[in-house]
This record gives sequence, C-alpha cells and structure tokens, in this order.
Amino acid sequence: MRENTTRSAVLPVAPSRGRLRPLGLDEVRITGGFWARRRQVNATATLDHCRDWMERVGWTGNFRAAVEGRIHRDRRGREFADSDVYKLIEAMAWEAGHGSGAALDAQIAAFTDTIAPAQEPDGYLNTAFGRPGQQPRYSDLEWGHELYCYGHLIQAGVAQTRARGEGELAKIARRAADHVCAAFGPGGIERVCGHPEIETALVELARATGEQRYLDQAALFVDRRGRHTLAEPEFGRAYYQDDVPVREATVLRGHAVRALYLAAGAVDVAVETGDDALLAAVVRQWEAAVARRTYLTGGMGSHHRDESLGDDFVLPPDRAYSETCAGVASVMLNWRLLLATGEPRYADLAERTLFNVVATSPSEDGKTFFYANTLHRRRRGTTPAADAQSPRAESGLRAPWFAVSCCPTNVARTLALLPAYLATADDDGVQLHQYADAELATSLAGGRDVALRVRTDYPSGGSVTVRIDRSPERPWTLSLRVPAWATGTDARLVDPDGVRRAVTPGTAAVTRRFRPGDEIRLELPVAPRWITPDPRIDAVRGTTAVQRGPLVYCAESVDLPPGHEVDAVRVNPAVPPQDGPDGTVVASGALVTAPDAPPAAESDRPGRAADSAAAAGTDAAAGTDADADADGDGQAGPDADTRWPYAPLDEAAVPAGERADIVLVPYHSWANRGPSTMRVWLPTTRPPTEPPGR
Amino acid sequence: MRENTTRSAVLPVAPSRGRLRPLGLDEVRITGGFWARRRQVNATATLDHCRDWMERVGWTGNFRAAVEGRIHRDRRGREFADSDVYKLIEAMAWEAGHGSGAALDAQIAAFTDTIAPAQEPDGYLNTAFGRPGQQPRYSDLEWGHELYCYGHLIQAGVAQTRARGEGELAKIARRAADHVCAAFGPGGIERVCGHPEIETALVELARATGEQRYLDQAALFVDRRGRHTLAEPEFGRAYYQDDVPVREATVLRGHAVRALYLAAGAVDVAVETGDDALLAAVVRQWEAAVARRTYLTGGMGSHHRDESLGDDFVLPPDRAYSETCAGVASVMLNWRLLLATGEPRYADLAERTLFNVVATSPSEDGKTFFYANTLHRRRRGTTPAADAQSPRAESGLRAPWFAVSCCPTNVARTLALLPAYLATADDDGVQLHQYADAELATSLAGGRDVALRVRTDYPSGGSVTVRIDRSPERPWTLSLRVPAWATGTDARLVDPDGVRRAVTPGTAAVTRRFRPGDEIRLELPVAPRWITPDPRIDAVRGTTAVQRGPLVYCAESVDLPPGHEVDAVRVNPAVPPQDGPDGTVVASGALVTAPDAPPAAESDRPGRAADSAAAAGTDAAAGTDADADADGDGQAGPDADTRWPYAPLDEAAVPAGERADIVLVPYHSWANRGPSTMRVWLPTTRPPTEPPGR
Repeated sequence: MRENTTRSAVLPVAPSRGRLRPLGLDEVRITGGFWARRRQVNATATLDHCRDWMERVGWTGNFRAAVEGRIHRDRRGREFADSDVYKLIEAMAWEAGHGSGAALDAQIAAFTDTIAPAQEPDGYLNTAFGRPGQQPRYSDLEWGHELYCYGHLIQAGVAQTRARGEGELAKIARRAADHVCAAFGPGGIERVCGHPEIETALVELARATGEQRYLDQAALFVDRRGRHTLAEPEFGRAYYQDDVPVREATVLRGHAVRALYLAAGAVDVAVETGDDALLAAVVRQWEAAVARRTYLTGGMGSHHRDESLGDDFVLPPDRAYSETCAGVASVMLNWRLLLATGEPRYADLAERTLFNVVATSPSEDGKTFFYANTLHRRRRGTTPAADAQSPRAESGLRAPWFAVSCCPTNVARTLALLPAYLATADDDGVQLHQYADAELATSLAGGRDVALRVRTDYPSGGSVTVRIDRSPERPWTLSLRVPAWATGTDARLVDPDGVRRAVTPGTAAVTRRFRPGDEIRLELPVAPRWITPDPRIDAVRGTTAVQRGPLVYCAESVDLPPGHEVDAVRVNPAVPPQDGPDGTVVASGALVTAPDAPPAAESDRPGRAADSAAAAGTDAAAGTDADADADGDGQAGPDADTRWPYAPLDEAAVPAGERADIVLVPYHSWANRGPSTMRVWLPTTRPPTEPPGR
Repeated sequence: MRENTTRSAVLPVAPSRGRLRPLGLDEVRITGGFWARRRQVNATATLDHCRDWMERVGWTGNFRAAVEGRIHRDRRGREFADSDVYKLIEAMAWEAGHGSGAALDAQIAAFTDTIAPAQEPDGYLNTAFGRPGQQPRYSDLEWGHELYCYGHLIQAGVAQTRARGEGELAKIARRAADHVCAAFGPGGIERVCGHPEIETALVELARATGEQRYLDQAALFVDRRGRHTLAEPEFGRAYYQDDVPVREATVLRGHAVRALYLAAGAVDVAVETGDDALLAAVVRQWEAAVARRTYLTGGMGSHHRDESLGDDFVLPPDRAYSETCAGVASVMLNWRLLLATGEPRYADLAERTLFNVVATSPSEDGKTFFYANTLHRRRRGTTPAADAQSPRAESGLRAPWFAVSCCPTNVARTLALLPAYLATADDDGVQLHQYADAELATSLAGGRDVALRVRTDYPSGGSVTVRIDRSPERPWTLSLRVPAWATGTDARLVDPDGVRRAVTPGTAAVTRRFRPGDEIRLELPVAPRWITPDPRIDAVRGTTAVQRGPLVYCAESVDLPPGHEVDAVRVNPAVPPQDGPDGTVVASGALVTAPDAPPAAESDRPGRAADSAAAAGTDAAAGTDADADADGDGQAGPDADTRWPYAPLDEAAVPAGERADIVLVPYHSWANRGPSTMRVWLPTTRPPTEPPGR
C-alpha cells in the first residue's frame, strides 16, 4: 500500500494508506441522472421527513427527558433510538458539504443544543442507561447498544468536522470517544458491544484528529471480538460475531449488519496498522459470503428470525430479509476494500448493491422505505399507516417509519455522501468506479491538476463519455471499471483519436498526454439477459431471472392481466428477453396460469383429483369456501382448491396455462404503483420433474 | 351427530356427542411393534428424564420458592415453566392408567405436595406473577401464559380423574378453573390468553365434571379471540390468532401450536354446544392449511422467527420449523375432527404426523429430543451438551432439554395416551383408524360385547390381520381405514371366508355375524414411491421425495460415500426406488458430485470459470483459503470455490457427478448415528433450467 499524501477535506473515509486515494465531496459532483434525482429527493424531502418523525415519536425528546430527570418514565423508542438522531445529523453534515449548507448547519446546531446537556461530565452519553430508574451503564453490553450509539455519534462528529469544520457536535463526539477509551481501554471493561459500529467510527476519528489512542481502542475492540466476552444468545454467539476471532473466521456470518460493520472496522484497523493478515481475513470472509450467502441483488441476510446471513446457499427469495442497512453496510465495506486493494470486484458488488438494494428502499418521494427487501412477494401488501410506526419485516409496501427505524437515516447518509464513491486517484491518474453524470476536479501528485466531466445514460444505457476539461502536460492514466455484468458482451472503449477496442470485465485504461476537449467513451451493451442460479441454491432451482446492465428486474402483478398474481407466471428461457418501452423488459412466450386454477390433472387421469383428495384426506369440493383476501390477514390465499399438495410421481400434475408476453420492471422500482405481488426468480415453463417416459 | 351413551372411564377426549365414540385406555391396548417400543421407552426412560430435568433446572423448585417467599428472586425458566410440570403429570396419569400405576401415583402425589401450597386461597396458581416483586396477575396476557398454564394443569387434573379417580391434583385444577371462570367470566376481564390451550382444557373439565360453567367459559374464550383484545405484537395479531374471529377465519395461521390448540378447543366447544357453523369454520381452516401450509411429514410451521405457519405454499425444507408440539397439537385436532365427523382424512393426517413428526422427536433411548423438525439439514450438527439446556431451533442432533422445553413433555403425554387413538366404536360396530399390534374389548350399544386382536408389521409392512375373539350373535360392522397413501396401489381386503376384494383409500367395512376365530386381513402394498410436490411450492421445485407406506424417507450423509454430504446427491426419478435391507430404500442411478467440487463448466467453455469470476467480481483462485468446518460455527462450508453464484444462461454450469445407488432411511430415524447432513426432498438429475438449444 502507498501513503495517501494529497488530501481533500471532505472525505467520508480517509485512510492514510491504500492502493487508491479517495476523492472528497469537494472534488466530485453528481450533476444529473439516476442518482442526482434520488439525492435531490433525499436533500429536499427525506432529511426533513426523518427529523419530523424522530421528533414525533420522541427519539429526540429522549435527550430532553434525560436532562429533565424524567427519562426513566418517559423514554421512547428502542434502546438504540439515539443512534438514528446521530445518523440523521451525519447525513445533514455531508449534505451541507455541498449545497444548502447554512440551513442544514442550523438544524445540526438545533440537534446539538438538544443533545449536549444530556452528556455526563465524564463524557458518557446515552438516554437508555445510567440514570436513576434505568439500568446501570454497560450492564447489558449484549443488547444495550451503548457503544453502537457512540459509533454513530462519532461518525456524525467526523462528518461535521470534515464537511463544515469542527463544531460543537464534533466536540461532544470526541468527549464520548475519550470516555470510551477510558472505560474500555486496557484495564477497563475488557468486553465488546453486541452491535459492532464503534470500531470503524473510532478509526475515522483517529484519522480526523491524528489521535493514535482512538485507533488503538478500535484495534482492541476488533481483537476482543470472538473471544466470548458476551453471553451466548439463543441465536448462538455467531449472531454478534463473538463466536470466532475476526482473523480466524472464514465467512461473514450472523446478524448481517453487525457482520458487515465489523468487517468495515476491521479493514480500517488493518489499513492503519499495516496488518495484512487481518485484511486478508476480511477478504477471505468477503469472498465466501459473496459466493454463497449473497442474493442476486447484492442483498445479504436470509433469516428473519435473527436478521442473519444464514448457511451457505440458503437464499430463499420469499423469505429474503436483505435488510436495507445491510446493503448500506456492504457498500461501506466494499468501498474500504476498493481503496485498500484497488480491485474492481469491490466496486462491482457496490454497484450491484447500490442499484438493487439501496435504491430500492426509498419510494420516489423519499418519504417511505423498505426495511427488508424481499425478492418474492406472494401477497399484495396493505398501505402502511401514514401516522404509525410499521413492523420492520413487512415488505409489501414501503412505510414512513418503523419501531426499529435504522434504515431511513442510513439511506439518507449514504445518498448524501454518494459522490465520494464515484472515483479515486493515485499517482498515475484517476479511476472511475461508478458511472453517473458528474464533474471531477483534483490534483495528482506533483500538483498536476486534472478536471473532467462524465456524461452517461447509465444504468438504462451503457454509454459513458468522459470529457477532459483540464490536464497537465505530462501523460497520466484514466481508468474506467468495465463492470462484471458486461461478461460476454461486446464492450468497447473509444479513445480520443476515435480508436475503438474491445474490453472485458475489470479495468480499461487510457494513458496519454490528454488535452482539454479530449473525449473517451466506454460502450457497454445493456441488453437484458436470463440469469441462472448456482444449482446449490435450492430455493431457486428451476427458475431464472433477468438482469439488464447492473439492474435486476422483476415481474410485478400490476403488469399482468387483471386478476393474476406473479406466481401464475412461468417463463420460457429459450426465448431471450427483449427491451420494452420505458426501461421495461419483455419476456415472450411465457405461460400464465388462470387465476385460482390449480395444476390440471393429466388428461388420461380423470380420477386424479379425487384420488388426490383421498391422498390428502381432503375434500376436493370443500375449498370453494376459502376466500381470497388481498391483505392475507389471517385469510386463505386466492387458490381455492384444498388438495394434498404432494402426489405420487405418476400422478403428478402438469400446470396448464396460456401463452403471454410478460412485462418486467427494474426491481428497485417495484411497489410504487399500489399493492402488488412481485418476484425476481421466475419458474421456467418445463415441469421441473418429468414423470418417467416423457 | 349422535349422543355418546356407552362410556369408558379412561378417555383422553370424551365428547358427549359425535359421529364416533372414542374407546378408553381400558378398552384398547398396544401389545407390540413400532409404537409399543416407543411407549416402553417413554414409560421407563422419558418420564424420569423429564422429572429429573425439571428438578435440576428449578422448574419444580419454583413452586417451593413461591411458598417460601423468594420466588421474585429465585424463579427459574421461562414464564410458562409451570406448564411443563403439569404436562409431565398428565403423561404420568395416562401411563398409570395402564401399567405401573402405583409407582406413578406416588410421583404424582409428590408433585402435588409441591404444587398445592403455591395455590392462592382464591384458586390463582402461577409462579411467574402476582407475588411481591413480581408483575401483577394478568398484567401481561399477551405473553404471560397464565391461562395457558391453567389449561395444562386442568388437563393433568382431568387425566388423573379419569385414569386414577379424582385426586388432590384434580381438586387443585378445579379450584383454578373456578378462579378462571370468576376472573374471566361475564363482567370479568373480557380478554383472552396470548397462547390458547385453556379452551380445550375447560371443555374436557366440563365433560369430566358435568359442570356447564366450564364449557360456557371455554365458549366465551373462543368467541373473544380475534376481536383485538390483545395488543398487536410485531409479528401481527395473527401470531396469536387475535386477528380474525375463529368463525370468520379461512385458514390456520400464525404461531402453529397456538393455532392448532385453539382449533382443537373450538371443535370441543362446537361439539358440546351443537354449533355446526363453528365446526364448519375449523374444517375449512384445516382444509386450507393441509392443502397449502403443511409439510410432507405432516409438520406445520415454516417460520423460525415467530414459529408460525407462513403464507400459502411457503414450505422451505431447510428452514422448516415443524415444531414437535405443533405435530402433537395437529394429532389432537385431527382426533377431535375424526370423532365429530367420522371422516378418515383426519386419521390419515394423524397417521402421517405421528410417524413422521411425533416419532421423529425422541431419540431411541427417549432421553434426547428434536424441538424443530427440519426436512433438510445442510451442516452436520454438534453434540448438544448433556448437562445444559439447548437452543430450541437447533435441529442438527437431538438435545436432552431446552430453555423452552415444551416438546419432551408433550411427546411423553402423547405416547402415554396413544392407544386411545387407535380405534372407535358406534352403534353399528368398531372402526380401526391406526394400525399396531393391539387388543381391543368394548361393548356396542345394547351390551353387545366385542373383543378382537390386531396383528401387523405396520408400518414396515402393510399386512393387518384382525382376529375376532368375542362377538355378539347379531351382525355388526368392522371398519378399517384404507390409508390415503395407498392410492393407486393394489390394496385388498380378505374376509373371514377368504374372499379377497380390492379396496381404495377411505373406509373398508365388513358387516356380518362374526364368530370367535374369524380373521379379516387388510393388505396394503408398501412399495417405495417417488412423491412430487405441487409446483406452487417454490422451495422444492425440481426435487422429489420417497414415501413408503406412511413413512417419509430421507438421505442421510452417514449412508453416502465418505466425505460426501447430502447436497451432493441428485436422484433419477425415471428409476423407481426399491426396497433395501432393514427397512431402507435404494435410489439407483443417482448422481453424486465429488466433495467440494463446484458445478463443472461446459466443456466447450473453458473460459467460463474465469468469466464467472469476473462476473462475480470475485477471484476464482482465492477460495482455497476457505476452510471446511463440520460444525459450521462461524466457518465457511465445505465448498471452497468463491465464484459469484449467478451466471448468464448461456454460461450456466452443468453439475457433474458419478452414478451411485443411494440408501434412504425413514425420516423418523435420522440423526441417531452421530452428526450428519440430511434431506427429504432430493434434486433430480436433469438440470432444472435447460440452456436454449439443448
């Protein structure tokens, strides 16, 4: 790794070493397109939405109640409610770094005035513990989230320092960090927090302040994890990664957000301490998790019960948890690994996760969110109450707020700092990792100023044009990521002389003496393609999905003939999917089963239904009682038949259906047109198990 | 329905009306075979095992602590720990009804001496609530389980009364029931318990005592359910069936045990009050749940998170919860529906559930148990601590006890009363529903004595011989259930004259003037057969399973070539499964992938692995770091490759493998030979999605 010398002020992540040097929010701007729209909605709607909800549900009020001595009676929200206030402040700070700074500074100041009096003289700050009538400080490290909350406070403080200069909030965060070092340092409480997050925050604080002790404390927390300093929960110690030390673990496991925050913190520690073994351990865990525990969308987490990753190849689409915050955490981890190693595979997974998880959570108006991001929705959802907190695992329609509402503020801070994820620099030049309309200006080593503009219709189109606005006289290298999804396509790079060459997934570079006005174009064909899962993923055997460029597509019932739900569709993988209007994809020659129609019996077995009723010990006639019920609340689904669903092979049903062309839409756009059913993995037309002799 | 006139004393369920009249433990004896062995182990090992564990973990001690005023400090176990003491007493009482009565009476008396002093003067009895330092009585009906505990106390009292005559424990139960009627009757607390169970218990108490008020209270609880008298939990009100009134619901839903106990209680109320609409509602819910929310084993419950049934056709084998207690509750419900309606379909599901869920839970020595009964185990389990309580959801190997240990005592009481489930009578004769070596003696209406003996090798064989020992002069009817699984087989009935006739699933009856020595034989071919799932069950698409007679089979790694796990196996459904030695089944021509081998690339695509590594943005070489780890505790699985598991269709992998004959064993017998992987649903050899042009 190399030292990072040149530095921008406004860096979300500022490693002192690494293969690539990050660029700050003062060096990269997103000027239009997919992400510009979402960032605009985030700045103008989501930030206020989160602030208003936290006031309304009393999470900001908790700080006032603490100061007024009534917190033991009046506290609202879960034990980690403080952290969402901090995450919102972090989002506001990054947003203030480019744009309506003054107005946001005022809001941050207002929050700070509320929070400051609640901090104890020794730096302790938490509204759930330690006051009369509350549990003592650090009496429940397993579930109390005290260090987790400090982590988000510190990240907010660092954001303020870097984006706006060190202010009051940053000072509060520093006092809290000093308290943590005193309380949990050598000779102190030699345990860890049930929810990692403090690790990455302390490293960033060390980077922002130059104070070694914060880095030492982070390293201590990383080393302590996996040594059974926490009680074993019913889910097992893997739930909070306390089962195996970080450097011994071979795969990401347990609670997905916890696993990914810890991995991000471990990379930060490894980079700052030059601990290559620790970095290699995280890379190994990343490789195993990406190959065996990751959804097509990039989402992680297949268990609802403990919000955990699940075993290898356990990736049920209909019970996918794929928490939005796990998507955010995965992007954080991938960014850190990209900076440390320069390997494009990390930018590839970040892209997949940004477009298909992070972009999926917020609605178009930025005021409702998915907490979990299922890949298959069987029942139409009901519209969540506009004025009540929703259950987090419900993923039928986006909700304005949740009893556990970590996701909205996590999306907000991610969109606020997103421009920083687009590009990096090194001594040789500039690397573009994510594609959006953007402007970039930075200085290469030796004070060589570079400025360029990116124009693209990404992700709906795959043409990326880079125009050089300023360039030094000496040659330098412009590198562009050729996305992994472009495998097998005719991807091309066109240099300033108009010379066109084929490129394959990885990195395409042009080294030359650029002149202002030079244009480099990357051409990435984005035709839709059928994607087939590894046969070891049992839950999606016999299905296929569509990906177009970086976007995963899905079938949504609102695009089907009236009365149909997505489970009635089987597609024909022998017919390639085609582009449809408005960014849709059309799957031709699909089979659609009539609503409520059970699989038809084979024509030569008229007795089958009756046999099967007997086989089920059920009455084939009786099912007509069962009502279809859109919200499914305790009611049976639309299928009225009541036959035993398992039959001897020679009596197997062959699903009937009519041919139709099915419209598929980008997964991130689903559930914006009212209650619907949806699925990403679509069964194929051929019956999965052929009775013998056929 | 008809009145039940003739009555045995020792009846687990004693409806006053119904299509069929149950026989008591004094009328039916199991004399040998599959269930006799398990009942012997239950009587000689499991009862003591449960008693010792409850003493050791302090659940019986809770009653002493309550009397000594230290319960607020010393209470052990979950809020419902009392109920397991009661369930064990119930098991002991039924067991005392036939066998080592005196010794068990003494144990029941000892329990009673411990429990009695803890009952308050007004009949209230619960060690978790109501004393100084504890939450007030009925302050947490959602989760407190107070009425649930009364339900099991009352069932234990009824068991004692019927099996041994009303004793002290029965009197304690009655005082508790009187308190419940006073506290929750009209004008009292007009709410319900978060966990149904009191309903069926109160009806049985009304039957045992002739006291109408217990029935009225049960009816009141059934009618109150579904009217939002409980707070909404994060899982939604369906979790405890408080979402929709019982008579309006169209399917079993929410927490499986709660749903099935409630349904059993509703049937009891419907039968005693002649409420045909209520009975029809439960039948409708049963039909929908059996057709769309039931595993091949008869197990119910597909969610770990809330132990609930899940949506229609959401039946993942690897995340199957299929709680043992839900199996017990399903048998209870089916028995009540069978008595009310006489329809064999209820005995069919009871048989399936008894052999494949209830019989699966206990180990051969009766000292370890499954709480959840998964249909697919991907990692070898670790041996649970012999002296510690295990997590309930872990289903790798059976455990001696659980922090939530409802299942062992539920299995114990079910095995103790099992003979009562074998047969019934009506005015016309005797009906045999479940097959085992047994002796039966009862009186038909008009004092016509009937006695018979059953000899069978069921379930390993399908020949059932009934020998008449005593018969009245007048003709009567012997009915035998022809199991649903016999569909499409050459089932035969041979009458005393040796006349052989074909029979089909349902009921086969012989009406005649029987003579002592007459023999009737039912011949049920039990050849193994491939079973195919309904295509709407996404989680098992492209797989098949083996059933042989009533037994579901599974592949277990201990029967595979060394080093292989079950996920390496794909079977060929074109080759019928054959009987193997010792009750095993052999699947010939299966494909077995080499250990650790990823799917091979198509031979004409040498570049595929590299492409796919790029497509994953992962490094195909790096995976060799990943260690295999048998217990999977935070470690990666045996598959060492680290490729992105989703590929464009034209680059799809075709799994390679070697042909082999695979040995399958009865599902109930798995995990008795050390740590293993296991699966019931086996992928078929043909790749599920054919790339085009093949």
